[in-house]
Amino acid sequence: MPKIVRLHRLGGPEELRLEDAAPEMPQAGEVRIRVQAIGLNNSEAQLRRGDYPMLKASLPCRIGRECAGIVDAIAPDVESIGLGDLVSTIPAFDIQRNGVYGDWCVVPAAAVVRVPAHLDRIEAAAVWQQYLTAYGPLVEYGRADGRHTVLITAGASSVGLGAIQMAKTLGCKVIATTRSGGKAEIIRRAGADHVIVTERDKLVPSVLDATGGRGFDFALDPIAGPGLANLVDAAANSATIFLYGQLATEATPFPLVTVMRKGLSIRGYTLWEITLDPQKRERAVRFIFDGLDARRLRPIVDRIFDLSDIVAAHRYLESGQQAGKIVVKTESRTP
Amino acid sequence: MPKIVRLHRLGGPEELRLEDAAPEMPQAGEVRIRVQAIGLNNSEAQLRRGDYPMLKASLPCRIGRECAGIVDAIAPDVESIGLGDLVSTIPAFDIQRNGVYGDWCVVPAAAVVRVPAHLDRIEAAAVWQQYLTAYGPLVEYGRADGRHTVLITAGASSVGLGAIQMAKTLGCKVIATTRSGGKAEIIRRAGADHVIVTERDKLVPSVLDATGGRGFDFALDPIAGPGLANLVDAAANSATIFLYGQLATEATPFPLVTVMRKGLSIRGYTLWEITLDPQKRERAVRFIFDGLDARRLRPIVDRIFDLSDIVAAHRYLESGQQAGKIVVKTESRTP
Repeated sequence: MPKIVRLHRLGGPEELRLEDAAPEMPQAGEVRIRVQAIGLNNSEAQLRRGDYPMLKASLPCRIGRECAGIVDAIAPDVESIGLGDLVSTIPAFDIQRNGVYGDWCVVPAAAVVRVPAHLDRIEAAAVWQQYLTAYGPLVEYGRADGRHTVLITAGASSVGLGAIQMAKTLGCKVIATTRSGGKAEIIRRAGADHVIVTERDKLVPSVLDATGGRGFDFALDPIAGPGLANLVDAAANSATIFLYGQLATEATPFPLVTVMRKGLSIRGYTLWEITLDPQKRERAVRFIFDGLDARRLRPIVDRIFDLSDIVAAHRYLESGQQAGKIVVKTESRTP
Repeated sequence: MPKIVRLHRLGGPEELRLEDAAPEMPQAGEVRIRVQAIGLNNSEAQLRRGDYPMLKASLPCRIGRECAGIVDAIAPDVESIGLGDLVSTIPAFDIQRNGVYGDWCVVPAAAVVRVPAHLDRIEAAAVWQQYLTAYGPLVEYGRADGRHTVLITAGASSVGLGAIQMAKTLGCKVIATTRSGGKAEIIRRAGADHVIVTERDKLVPSVLDATGGRGFDFALDPIAGPGLANLVDAAANSATIFLYGQLATEATPFPLVTVMRKGLSIRGYTLWEITLDPQKRERAVRFIFDGLDARRLRPIVDRIFDLSDIVAAHRYLESGQQAGKIVVKTESRTP
């Protein structure tokens, strides 16, 4: 019997229950995917715990937004996707109803993309969250290029590593941060020109030092909290700081005077801006496919778990030990 | 003997000392102006008290950034301005050294603009701070037009009224706030489509009501503080909130989740971005002159004081009773 993961109660990783569930038929506009691999995201641990700032779970619910697999059922009105297509999902749907953790999922056809042949199923499940998140600030809004220095905090996260690769394809100078020295090497290999180990190095002088005193032009930060003051101090005049998450547990004071003095933009951002806008999404997908084809964007996978070990996978996700993406694979049972 | 105002000690309006001072000769790149009228700004009261966030006064110092008058001395290297020209000053210089409160001032020629014949000296002293402040957010950065709704807080301040006029010339829908009902009429006459009296009306439902539930596209706010949370709640998706002052005495918490959810930009701004950049300044001055020529921009002057009453003028400035600009006139003594 195929399995899906369902959440009945908020709490620790053990609340992820693997349950038998016969595949459902897609409704109008939807397709069903026989899931082969699932990409995990921090926001899913937040949703599970009940501290995801963007959404409170309505229990019981499914969970998960990124997977790769084979289309095995299609609503009659769907023409863009065919049976048997190898696809992956773009985060652009209700992750409680259409959650992808499991052997099957049903998602809107508009959130499904055919995957290039050279990507294996593991990589295909590790593409969209990271590169779409990086795309908005760097390309769609920032139009970053060789004139710009980009600061990427949490540089060893999957989004961090994806953003480093993307910023380098654009010709930017890249500075990335990581808490401890253990992940500096993978960050450097992803392309960062400078790595700041925040346990050891002070952020502001390190950034100023790496930029001849000028500061960064763009920052991508999923942390916020009191650290925003340091970002503001390390910013060049007219810089934009994109805040795309709230990993900090403390509130975020707003350093108004320096923000005014430097003419800074503090920009809240989620990838939904890209994924829910058909034109932006199309541009983004094309840009990312081009990068994947040229092998300038290469998803970095840290570790692969089996679906039956989903609890261990989330425990590892929360440990903060990983550098890059955690992927869960299924046994590809035929529904 | 000509007089100038000098500040020897931080404190109340009475610290503005009117002193005899023979006119100084302009240094390289400078011109001297026989001042006829002076525009007062809130930031000058803040500087005098010692709570101007952008600058701490080095005492003793002069003060003031906006005046109109006749050029009566020119450094040999200045070609752009002639003796006898009627000019006004653009805030783009050290207001402590080049402060304009007094019968004369010496300012950089680059910060001086010839004034159109139809503007009298009082209006000419009330142009630049307000319209240049409004120009950056509305024109240079926001490119606001008929598709946009603009929220202008402190709508009866000189910048507020100037921004209302400018937003209307661009075709925007304009919502403006004022604390008490007494200034609603002047705000409406300046062109605002909706006036929110914050003592009486709730900001968020009022803005949503005026925009069919959508919220504003741009806000110009000189207050910041805890009220930023309301602005964020009243913003449309992708809106930009320009913070150009810190009238609030409390800190500014950052409402991160809503800022992320809506994809908002919180943009620190000062008019120095425009006045210190020759190209932006040229575009701004041309835009404002066009508006003045067409009488679509008309400085609103609340009250005129004599220079000998500078203390009373600052007391009135701090009272918050005014709607529009407070101007101080001199006796135009020939230096």
